[in-house]
Amino acid sequence: MNKTDFEKQIEFILEIDKVKNILRRTHTTSGKNENDAEHSWHMSIMIFLLSEYSNEKFDVLKAIKMALIHDLVEIDAGDTYAYDKAMKATQKEREDIAAKRIFGMLPDKNKKEFTELFYEFEEKITPESKFVRAMDNFQPILLNNFNNGKDWKINGVTKEQIYNRNIITAECTDIIWDKIKDIIDENIKSGNIKE
Amino acid sequence: MNKTDFEKQIEFILEIDKVKNILRRTHTTSGKNENDAEHSWHMSIMIFLLSEYSNEKFDVLKAIKMALIHDLVEIDAGDTYAYDKAMKATQKEREDIAAKRIFGMLPDKNKKEFTELFYEFEEKITPESKFVRAMDNFQPILLNNFNNGKDWKINGVTKEQIYNRNIITAECTDIIWDKIKDIIDENIKSGNIKE
Repeated sequence: MNKTDFEKQIEFILEIDKVKNILRRTHTTSGKNENDAEHSWHMSIMIFLLSEYSNEKFDVLKAIKMALIHDLVEIDAGDTYAYDKAMKATQKEREDIAAKRIFGMLPDKNKKEFTELFYEFEEKITPESKFVRAMDNFQPILLNNFNNGKDWKINGVTKEQIYNRNIITAECTDIIWDKIKDIIDENIKSGNIKE
Repeated sequence: MNKTDFEKQIEFILEIDKVKNILRRTHTTSGKNENDAEHSWHMSIMIFLLSEYSNEKFDVLKAIKMALIHDLVEIDAGDTYAYDKAMKATQKEREDIAAKRIFGMLPDKNKKEFTELFYEFEEKITPESKFVRAMDNFQPILLNNFNNGKDWKINGVTKEQIYNRNIITAECTDIIWDKIKDIIDENIKSGNIKE
């Protein structure tokens, strides 16, 4: 038992509380801006509930861990909106620095696991990271569709942009991808998404 | 593949978004009232990070699932503050009705799993449910200690009340219970918790 490790873990737990203040552009069903903690919680339940629809079997615990921590770097790097080109260009650099500082607060064994989970998520090669990425995209699509496409309209989002962003979803889960295509078609019809 | 099951799951995912509006009495490190989604997310990472301190081995995936869903009943039943006697008296009845409606939205297989996880958590007999309960209590203690005992002072909380609430923690994790006792002692000294 290493008391010093425990103290580091406690400091980390208090540090990541800041994620509750990182606001996303997405709005919840009640109309408020969603924060990263809420988003990560919601995605984690979706992984648990929808894992059966993955084309490939995967490790659900690993995927949920990945979802829980995937936005922690935004404490320093801020939220990067999916369709903001300028922010996207500097995202990797900002997030690498953030990952080093934030995961660096942890004892070595945890630092290694958190860092590996974060970069596995970023690389989107393993079945876990693909499904987590799919949920990372599907969750705001569901909210946005519920809100009559509000965020798509505000940000002038096109069908092509959503298709490009969801390449991984199309690869890893047929039924969810079919649902997303239906949602996109409906929102093109009602003028919320540009054709 | 049952499309009807999938549609039920999507409706459930949108329904539980309401948890992001259920406010707790606990304040985050930035001073705002915490909501149930943020709390459940924070607890889930704590389970992942601190599971090594459980006196008994347990299934981390099952524990995290339990943490993610343990407050969903509050969509209908509302948050019951730990030290509110009147609300505590009616809590079980309110939450049973809520569990029936909310988990009842799910396909049968999911309904069964979510309901079982919820009642396993409530009963606090298994190692998973004990550790989740320990985190459910430790998380607000950490926030409250960070905030100079603000919530304890506002609510006139006593040492005895916190000890009674943390009986399970004392049973299931020595190092975390030692930490809690230290925090309580410091906050008695500074007048935040009544002796």
